Amino acid sequence: MKNTKNTPLHFTNVRIQDAFWAPRLAANRQQGLDRVYEQLQKTGRIEAYDLDWSPDSSRPKPHVFWDSDVAKWLEGACYSLMNHQDQDLLGRVESLVDRILSAQGEDGYLNPYYTVVEPENRWTNLRDRHELYCAGHMIEASIAHHQATGDRRFLSAMRRYADLIDRTFGPGKGQLRGYPGHQEIELALVKLYHHTGEKRYLNLAAYFVDARGGHPYYFDQEARQRREDPAAYWAKTHAYTQSHRPVREQETVVGHAVRAMYLYGAMADLAREQRDRELRVVLEKLWEDLVSHKLYLTGGIGTSRENEGFTPSYHLPNQDAYAETCAAIGLVFWAHRMLHLHMDSRYADVMERALYNAVLSGVSLEGDRFFYVNPLASDGTHQRQVFYSCSCCPPNINRLLPTIGGFVYSTTGDEITTHLYIQSEARIEFDPGTVTLIQETDYPWDGVVCIRCEMDVQQSFTLKLRKPGWCQEARLYLNGDRLPDDIPFEGGYFRLERRWKPGDEIRLQWLMPAHRVYAHPDVKATVDSVALMRGPIVYCLEALDQPVPLHLIRLPRSVSLESRFETDLLGGVGTLVGKALAADVDAWGGALYQPDPPDFVRVPFKAIPYYAWANREPGAMRVWLPEA
Amino acid sequence: MKNTKNTPLHFTNVRIQDAFWAPRLAANRQQGLDRVYEQLQKTGRIEAYDLDWSPDSSRPKPHVFWDSDVAKWLEGACYSLMNHQDQDLLGRVESLVDRILSAQGEDGYLNPYYTVVEPENRWTNLRDRHELYCAGHMIEASIAHHQATGDRRFLSAMRRYADLIDRTFGPGKGQLRGYPGHQEIELALVKLYHHTGEKRYLNLAAYFVDARGGHPYYFDQEARQRREDPAAYWAKTHAYTQSHRPVREQETVVGHAVRAMYLYGAMADLAREQRDRELRVVLEKLWEDLVSHKLYLTGGIGTSRENEGFTPSYHLPNQDAYAETCAAIGLVFWAHRMLHLHMDSRYADVMERALYNAVLSGVSLEGDRFFYVNPLASDGTHQRQVFYSCSCCPPNINRLLPTIGGFVYSTTGDEITTHLYIQSEARIEFDPGTVTLIQETDYPWDGVVCIRCEMDVQQSFTLKLRKPGWCQEARLYLNGDRLPDDIPFEGGYFRLERRWKPGDEIRLQWLMPAHRVYAHPDVKATVDSVALMRGPIVYCLEALDQPVPLHLIRLPRSVSLESRFETDLLGGVGTLVGKALAADVDAWGGALYQPDPPDFVRVPFKAIPYYAWANREPGAMRVWLPEA
Repeated sequence: MKNTKNTPLHFTNVRIQDAFWAPRLAANRQQGLDRVYEQLQKTGRIEAYDLDWSPDSSRPKPHVFWDSDVAKWLEGACYSLMNHQDQDLLGRVESLVDRILSAQGEDGYLNPYYTVVEPENRWTNLRDRHELYCAGHMIEASIAHHQATGDRRFLSAMRRYADLIDRTFGPGKGQLRGYPGHQEIELALVKLYHHTGEKRYLNLAAYFVDARGGHPYYFDQEARQRREDPAAYWAKTHAYTQSHRPVREQETVVGHAVRAMYLYGAMADLAREQRDRELRVVLEKLWEDLVSHKLYLTGGIGTSRENEGFTPSYHLPNQDAYAETCAAIGLVFWAHRMLHLHMDSRYADVMERALYNAVLSGVSLEGDRFFYVNPLASDGTHQRQVFYSCSCCPPNINRLLPTIGGFVYSTTGDEITTHLYIQSEARIEFDPGTVTLIQETDYPWDGVVCIRCEMDVQQSFTLKLRKPGWCQEARLYLNGDRLPDDIPFEGGYFRLERRWKPGDEIRLQWLMPAHRVYAHPDVKATVDSVALMRGPIVYCLEALDQPVPLHLIRLPRSVSLESRFETDLLGGVGTLVGKALAADVDAWGGALYQPDPPDFVRVPFKAIPYYAWANREPGAMRVWLPEA
Repeated sequence: MKNTKNTPLHFTNVRIQDAFWAPRLAANRQQGLDRVYEQLQKTGRIEAYDLDWSPDSSRPKPHVFWDSDVAKWLEGACYSLMNHQDQDLLGRVESLVDRILSAQGEDGYLNPYYTVVEPENRWTNLRDRHELYCAGHMIEASIAHHQATGDRRFLSAMRRYADLIDRTFGPGKGQLRGYPGHQEIELALVKLYHHTGEKRYLNLAAYFVDARGGHPYYFDQEARQRREDPAAYWAKTHAYTQSHRPVREQETVVGHAVRAMYLYGAMADLAREQRDRELRVVLEKLWEDLVSHKLYLTGGIGTSRENEGFTPSYHLPNQDAYAETCAAIGLVFWAHRMLHLHMDSRYADVMERALYNAVLSGVSLEGDRFFYVNPLASDGTHQRQVFYSCSCCPPNINRLLPTIGGFVYSTTGDEITTHLYIQSEARIEFDPGTVTLIQETDYPWDGVVCIRCEMDVQQSFTLKLRKPGWCQEARLYLNGDRLPDDIPFEGGYFRLERRWKPGDEIRLQWLMPAHRVYAHPDVKATVDSVALMRGPIVYCLEALDQPVPLHLIRLPRSVSLESRFETDLLGGVGTLVGKALAADVDAWGGALYQPDPPDFVRVPFKAIPYYAWANREPGAMRVWLPEA
C-alpha cells in the first residue's frame, strides 16, 4: 500500500510565482474576496448571526444555506491570509468570527436559520435543509482560521459543534440514524480528524457515508415524521442526493453533481484512511462512469439545470450545459483524492482539465464576477454576475484559488510526485533536510518546464513527473543531457530515482501542438464537430474575434492551427488562429430552402482559451464547431 | 382585377377518389369525429350548454374556449355529412344543435362560460377570454349546418348572435371599440356575408381588422376598466395578438401563430372583397417574411411553445419546434386566400406543403389520435394523444379533412385553375353546361396526372394547371400528343385555352425524383444537414427502420436515393432508401474524447413520409440529417 502514503504538499509550502495563476490569486485577494464579502453583508447573510430576525422584523429572513456561503468565504479569506498578509482582511475575518461565535448555542449548535426561524425543527429535515452541509463548511472554515491565525477559539467552538453532531447522529441508542441531504460534512470531519487527531470525527464521517441509502430509509421516515408524504418528494428520486441505495452498491454517478462530488471525495478519504478496498472498487467504477460518459471536455460536470446534476450517458448539450462551477471544484477535490488513492495520472489529468477550464471559467479575469453555470456555447446572453441568490459558487472560487499550490506536489518520505506544472517555489521537508523545488515554466502556454533542486547537501529521493495526458511526445533532460526514452514510467509518471545534487536541473519538454478533439459518436450535441485544445487549455471561439457570425463558421479538418501568445489580449493569453470556412450567406440569397447546400468562403478565425470567455463585450461563444 | 374573380370550387363539387386522401377522410369520419365527440362529452364541453353549472355543483366548470371545440367538431361533422350520409352522425349533430340553441340568450348571446360563471363580465376581457373567437367558430358551424341540412334554425340563431355583436362593437355611439384577442370571427363574418349576402357582416369583419392595434389602445383601456395594470399583461407584448400596431403598419409575422394566420386570412378576404390594394401590399410583405424566415420545411409554423408562435427569423429548432397543428391549418387557410388574391402558384406550393406534411402529421393514420405540437425531430417521447386540455387541434383536423376537395380547383366564368393533384371527379357548372373533370393519378407517390374532360358538348374554356414548385421538369400531353414547351405559363400555371371536346385528356408528367433540400445558413438548427423530399412529401427517418441508432447516421451527398412504394407499410407509403454512413461506435471504443473523429461504416437507411411518423412503436425521428 505504498502509494496511499502519498500526501499532498500543503499550499503554504508552494509559492506560486507564475504569470498564469498568480494574477488570478491576486485578483481573488484584491477583488473576489471583497466583492463577495460585500454581498454577504448586503444580503443579510452576516447580520443573520445577530439572531435578531423575527417574523415582524424588516431584516431579511435567514436562509438554510446562508452559513455555507459565509463559511466558504471565511475559509477562502484565511487561506488568502496564509499566502499573503493583509491586516484589513484579517480584521474583517476576526470580527466575522466573533459574530459567528456569538450565535452559537450553549450546546454547540450553530445555525441562524434554525435558531431564529424554526427553533423547534432542528434536525427534522436533513434531506432538504442543508443543516449538516452548513456545519461541514463551518468546520472547514474553523480549521482554516486556526491554520491562518494560530488562534483556537473558532476551531474549539466548531469542535463543540462537531461533538454535538457526533452525539446526535449515529447507530447508538437514542441517536438519529440520519445523514446529510447535501454532503460536505463528511469531508470536513476527515479534515478535522487530520487536524486534531481525534478519531471520533473520522468515525462519524464513515458513519454518515455508510448509513447513506440504508434501510429503513431515513429520509422517508423523517418525511413521515414531518407529516409529509415521502412520495411527494420534490426532487422525485433519492438518486438526487445519492441516497437511492447504499453507497457501496452504487455503480453510476447520478443526481446533484456537487453532492455527488463531495460524497465521492469523502468516500475516497475513507478508502484511504481505512484502507477500504471495497470503497476503492466502488470509486473506480464511479470514476469510470463519470469520465467515460458524463464529463464535459472542459471538466465541467452535471448536465442539467433540473437536478443541477447528472443525466444519462453521453447527454452533453453545449448551450444548455449546466456544469456548475461548484461541481467542477468538487471534481477537483474528488480527482485529487483519487490521485492519492492510486497515484495514477489519469486522475491528475482530469483535475488539471477541470482547474484550467471549467473551474477557471467560473470567475472573471478581474476576479470580481462569477459564473454559476458554465455552458460550452452561448448566444451571448449568458454573462457573469457578482452574486446569485443561491450563491455557492463565488465563495467556493474564493476558497479554491488560494490553495492552487496544494495540487502541485505530493510527497512521501522519499518521493516527490509532481502533478501540475506551475512556476513556483516549493519547500519539501525531508529527513536529511529541506528540498526546495524551483519550477520555471510558461505553462500552460508552453510545455517547457525546468525544475531545479535546491538544498544544502546531496540527497537521495525519487522525483516523479506526470506526463500530461494531452501530451503525445515528451523529452526529458537532466542537467542539459537528454534522458533515455526508457526511463521508468509508471502510472503516467516518469520516475527519476537518484542522489540529487544541489542545483540539479530537470528540463521537461512536453511538446504542445494545438490539437483537435472529437467526442464519442453517442454525444449528440457534438456530431461532426471538433474542439481545439493546446496543452490543458480548451479553446473556444467568441463572436467578436471572428469576421463573420459564429454559426457560419466551419473548421476544416485539414487546416493548420497556429498558436500565438497575445500579450495584450485578455491579460495575456494563448490563441489559436487559422483559416476556417464560412457559409456564404450573400451567395445563398433570400430563399429559406434550396436544393443545394451553401457555398463556403475562407475566413480567418481566432480561438481563445475557454476560461477567458465572457470577459469582453457580450457575444456568442462556442467550444465545439462543425467540421467542414 | 381579373384574378380576384377566381373562386374556389366548393368541396361538395369535388369527389375525392384516391388512395391517399380518401382513406384519411374515411378515418376522420369513422374514427376522428367519434373520438373527439366522446372527449367533448367526457370533459363536460357538451353538457356545459345545459347551463346548470354552479360553484357548488360537481360538474366541470366551463372554460372560455370550450365553445370553439364544440363548434369546430360540429362544423367538421356537417362537412362530413355533405360528403357522406350518416344517420347516426346526423342525429348527434341535430341533438347537439338543439342543446346549443337552448343555451342562447334572449338577446342572441351564446357562451356558457360567461352565462353561468361570470354573467356580469360579458365583453370585459376581449384580450384573453376568446369570447369573439368562440362566436366566430359557432357562426362557421351554423353555416356548415345549414349547408349540410338545409335547416336554417342554427344559422338564424347565430345570425342573431352576429347581429348582437354587430350592435355591440363598432365605431358608433355607445358601441365598444374592441376587437378579438384571438382572431377568428373575422373569417366567420366574411363567410356569413357570402352565405347570406348581408353586407353588415363584411363591414363588421372590416371593422375588427382595422380597429386592431389603433389608439387609444383598447386592450389597455379594457384592462384598466378591470382594475388591472395593462403593463402586467401575462403575454408581455401585444405582438402576441398582432395588435401591437394597426394591421396596415405590420411588416413581420409575430406572436401567436394561429391568431396570426386567422388575422392574415381575414385581411386577404377583405383585400379581395373590398379590392383593397393597401392590404394586399401589407399581406405580400407578411407572406414574404413568413416563407423566407419562419416556415418549417414541413409547412409548420410558430417555433415557440412560449407564445405558441413566432420567434426571430431563422429560429427553426427541430426537436423543440412547436409548429402547432392549428397553425398549419391556419396557414392553409391563409395561403388559399392569398392564392385567390394573386393566382400565383407560390401560394399553392405552401398550401400543398402544409397540407401534405405539417397538417397531416397532426393526426394518426387511423384518424383517432392527434398531435398538438409537430416537431421535426423527436427522441421518441413525443406521441399523439386523443385529446388535450386545450384541444383546439383535434376538431380543427375534423373540420379540415372533409373539405380537402375545396382546395383542388378554382373557377371563373371561363377558367378552371387546378391547384392540387388528387384523384377525383369534379363538377364545374359553366354557362353552356356542366364540365366534369376526372383526375386520375397516384399523386403524391407518382407525378403522372391524367385529367379527362367530360361534358355533353364541346366547350371553350381555359384550363390552368399548376406546375408544382418542387418540380424541375414537366411534360404535358393532350390526347397523347406532347405539348410544346412554349405553351403559355403564367404565375406558375400552364395555360391551355381551347375548345374542349368531350373526352379530351390532358396528361401531366411532373417528374418526381427524390431530392435533397438545404436550409438557409442562418438556420442554426440545420447546419450541414440535409432533408429529403419527393414531390410534396417531406421525408423523415424513424429509428425503427434503421439498423443503427438514428443519431449515428449521416447522409452522404453523393448517395443515390431510391424511391419505392411499400404497400404494407403504414397503410401504403412511398419510401426512400439508400446507403447512409453510420459512425462506428464499436471501432471508437470507450473513450469519451479522442484526437481523431469516428470511423464510418455503410448502412442501409429508409426514410418514410414525415406525416406518417409516430404511427408505430415509439422511437426517435429526424427530418434533418447531418450530411457526411
